[in-house]
Amino acid sequence: MLGRGTSFNRFFRHRRQFNKLSGATSEHQRTNENHSYYKYAYIGGAATAGVLGFKHFVKTAKLDHAKDETMSEKKLENLQIYKQEEVKKHGKDADRIWVTYKDGVYDVTDFIAMHPGGDKILLAAGAAVDPFWALYSQHKTKEVLEILEGYRIGKLDVKDVPKPVADAFSNDPERHPALLVRNSKPFNAETPPSLLTDHFYTPNELFFVRNHLPVPDIKTENHRLTVETIKGKTVDLSVEELKKKYKSYTIGSVIQCAGNRRADMNQYKKVQGLMWEGTAISNAEWTGVRLRDLLADAGIDVFDDKIKHVHFEGADVDPTGTPYGASIPIEKARGDEVIVAYHMNGVDIPRDHGAPLRVIVPGNVGARQVKWLRKIIVSEKESDSHWQQKDYRAFSPAVNIGDELKWNTVPSIQEYPVQCAICSPAPNTKVDRGDETVDISGYAWSGGGRGIIRIEVSVDGGETWNSVEMEQEEKQDQEHMYAWTLFKAEVKIPPGVKEFNIIAKAVDRAYNTQPETASGIWNVRGLIHNAWHRVPIIVKD
Amino acid sequence: MLGRGTSFNRFFRHRRQFNKLSGATSEHQRTNENHSYYKYAYIGGAATAGVLGFKHFVKTAKLDHAKDETMSEKKLENLQIYKQEEVKKHGKDADRIWVTYKDGVYDVTDFIAMHPGGDKILLAAGAAVDPFWALYSQHKTKEVLEILEGYRIGKLDVKDVPKPVADAFSNDPERHPALLVRNSKPFNAETPPSLLTDHFYTPNELFFVRNHLPVPDIKTENHRLTVETIKGKTVDLSVEELKKKYKSYTIGSVIQCAGNRRADMNQYKKVQGLMWEGTAISNAEWTGVRLRDLLADAGIDVFDDKIKHVHFEGADVDPTGTPYGASIPIEKARGDEVIVAYHMNGVDIPRDHGAPLRVIVPGNVGARQVKWLRKIIVSEKESDSHWQQKDYRAFSPAVNIGDELKWNTVPSIQEYPVQCAICSPAPNTKVDRGDETVDISGYAWSGGGRGIIRIEVSVDGGETWNSVEMEQEEKQDQEHMYAWTLFKAEVKIPPGVKEFNIIAKAVDRAYNTQPETASGIWNVRGLIHNAWHRVPIIVKD
Repeated sequence: MLGRGTSFNRFFRHRRQFNKLSGATSEHQRTNENHSYYKYAYIGGAATAGVLGFKHFVKTAKLDHAKDETMSEKKLENLQIYKQEEVKKHGKDADRIWVTYKDGVYDVTDFIAMHPGGDKILLAAGAAVDPFWALYSQHKTKEVLEILEGYRIGKLDVKDVPKPVADAFSNDPERHPALLVRNSKPFNAETPPSLLTDHFYTPNELFFVRNHLPVPDIKTENHRLTVETIKGKTVDLSVEELKKKYKSYTIGSVIQCAGNRRADMNQYKKVQGLMWEGTAISNAEWTGVRLRDLLADAGIDVFDDKIKHVHFEGADVDPTGTPYGASIPIEKARGDEVIVAYHMNGVDIPRDHGAPLRVIVPGNVGARQVKWLRKIIVSEKESDSHWQQKDYRAFSPAVNIGDELKWNTVPSIQEYPVQCAICSPAPNTKVDRGDETVDISGYAWSGGGRGIIRIEVSVDGGETWNSVEMEQEEKQDQEHMYAWTLFKAEVKIPPGVKEFNIIAKAVDRAYNTQPETASGIWNVRGLIHNAWHRVPIIVKD
Repeated sequence: MLGRGTSFNRFFRHRRQFNKLSGATSEHQRTNENHSYYKYAYIGGAATAGVLGFKHFVKTAKLDHAKDETMSEKKLENLQIYKQEEVKKHGKDADRIWVTYKDGVYDVTDFIAMHPGGDKILLAAGAAVDPFWALYSQHKTKEVLEILEGYRIGKLDVKDVPKPVADAFSNDPERHPALLVRNSKPFNAETPPSLLTDHFYTPNELFFVRNHLPVPDIKTENHRLTVETIKGKTVDLSVEELKKKYKSYTIGSVIQCAGNRRADMNQYKKVQGLMWEGTAISNAEWTGVRLRDLLADAGIDVFDDKIKHVHFEGADVDPTGTPYGASIPIEKARGDEVIVAYHMNGVDIPRDHGAPLRVIVPGNVGARQVKWLRKIIVSEKESDSHWQQKDYRAFSPAVNIGDELKWNTVPSIQEYPVQCAICSPAPNTKVDRGDETVDISGYAWSGGGRGIIRIEVSVDGGETWNSVEMEQEEKQDQEHMYAWTLFKAEVKIPPGVKEFNIIAKAVDRAYNTQPETASGIWNVRGLIHNAWHRVPIIVKD
């Protein structure tokens, strides 16, 4: 029942039975029958001081491997030559797992537990990683190639070296040149911070983009949406039929990537993932039909005890044909606010944002709001998708880069906590003291429909604060606020300083607040960074 | 529309129109039609450095008054004598408001805006405060009497001096001697921290007590519960009838006072209110009937757009006959979890906890879980009760003691944010280095049914953390966790230190976390303190 890390005793020593400690009285025995100790496993990790980053990870991986006396230092010309059929024997069920990349052969057995993408690496077991890396171009960095070289065992026979993989992204749509591209294949780009707060509803062309795979090119008239139950496919609709058959609803709702502000968390201590700054978030008005109307039409009783989750499947697929997928709890799915959308800010959803259909789950993280939606499935379990099970879960700060990631010990991110960031001015902006003030603008938002009740700004490190005026959606009240809150203010330059930080933070309807720094929320994947946002400003006299 | 404080320009200077700043493009105009700027008023308060406390408040009140050249310094024998009928002319609608206390006559006009209890003070306008102070004994301190003396204008004619008020609390129930009494009349006491985590369900006699008024002495067989709609009283039941008529439900649910851990916030900077330490929180199993079943029986459609709130009225009344009251939003009221309870941990609810009936609103603050429940009212508006409108709202840190409290600029507290505290060891416990470890125990809980997903402990100021094992209710899942989470662990004493802090903090299902210190959450009334809990430990070599 206890998944206790080996390092447990370095912190908690001579541990006695918890039951013994708390079971001292008969009162306790009487009332404690219906709950369990240790309902959640211990999430491992030693008390590790200092800053561990990707470089440390690289070093550890290589050193560990060197200890195993493999051949990372051998010269390439001396390497053994392997045939593809030999590599194939080292598939996912073999004792030792091999992969190839270009003409290299690698034994990655000892690396699997450390792979940031989890056991997805096994999809290439006994074969080439090239088609996967063509889709996940984050692998194509010097550091990753160095890690891989550490596991090199040989060279692939020249006749078996795979041809360069065709660019799966060549049919991606054109994008607005203003977008700040963090990764081009798959395309991931954020809105320029200087433009984000100009619009209460982010224009479609400036809406941040978070793609996991190449963008499907779907002809709307050919697209079908199906709803599946245990009895089989019970609804099968074209987009036109969906629009005609169900009542339409429009809702203002934010989409935020769980990695938003990762670069900021990375400043505190290195994390893994795409280095999003603070604008992997946008707000749009979405129009579509209620998910619960579709479910009802499929003969699904949304109050049936056996239905716990609703799965969504996109038309974007990886090289094995596996689609992007995610799920949400049934209680959320049957709410007023969850829709299958076909319009974004009043026009057809653009390709990058899920054309022709996307599920909108207001108040939840972006990863559950599946684009290019083609299938809805009800289930007793969460989605088995990689992105539900092996990603988008925020570990404890006790889990460090290089530690084994026990994904089932942390829940999938659904509702987002309270977030707030300054978009303008940019960090290290120089201001003239003679101007006396600095114009600032930014956004705040919280999950679960919890409206922002105030936003406060400090220029003295958080010793004193001032509330600022807020812009909110009139149609949404504090208990159902899925759109964001924008703020603008003029902040007085403090006297007698050469530089200062502007800090902003927000409070939501349940009086949730943000932590001061990343100290308590740092996590290996750099998810959900919502510490106070600090923008350093330089004052010129 | 803007309730802008006069101190606004001290921070934000030369403010331009917000609309001008953000209305730069036609895109903005197209999409921004349906929301309003300034939906919430600016919450005033200057950027004030340093620590302001109650003493500062006393001093300010007296000095301001001295400037008005009234007679705070005159000798008592020289004071003018007033008849009661003269005092009566200075009632709540007069230009100058007078009150009497014992034989003193006071012009409190200039104090009303500063009264921590809001305009409740007007209930005594033109008359004696004595019967009110008999109920709110927090007034009977040297500091409050000093403030009052600052407003003295004369002496009451000896024939009009009221007789000492009978003790309204003389019929309060007996209490367990272990309770830590913070105020005796009305009775407010917390559970000894060393006992709190011994029981997953707090024994009734150790459950913390937060009373606002004397405890009603209700004979269960005489008690009636009524449900009122716009059409009048539509349900009128005895406790026996209620038990027979509706299905019973049992739920484990925490009650926490919004002032829990106020003493801790007070260490950061002085606040007003009862100095609760960290155990104004307890957990019990409550049995009763669903509120929505009662509402349905009263012919109320809980999905009717006109019904926004459900009000509760207790049998505890102030000297004017006004009962304790509160309300919750209809969406909460119609949930599975809200019950009218008659049992607490399997036995009749004790007098201090609401005998014979109490509403249990799992996931919300204690103040809404009205005891001695006698009336339920549905309404378009929140309760007008003092405790809904002029208390239990947490202001911005920008609002200081002595500032006017604009209650309508902040929402009433309903759902609680994530909370966590160490109960044992006590602060400044001395430990022997030879013991190597310290046993710790504590609790965590969050509002809205958001389960605790982990609890982490640090002994190095938050640089590194370790997850600890948790005890939770087996019947409740992470999306519906209304009972608390207990934790116990053995923490290793860090080498080479003479003292250290044990810090504990929790993460809830929506990945909400706690702030590091009170810096961003400090509020004048000391409500909802949920910063990291720190317990200093002294190491003996």
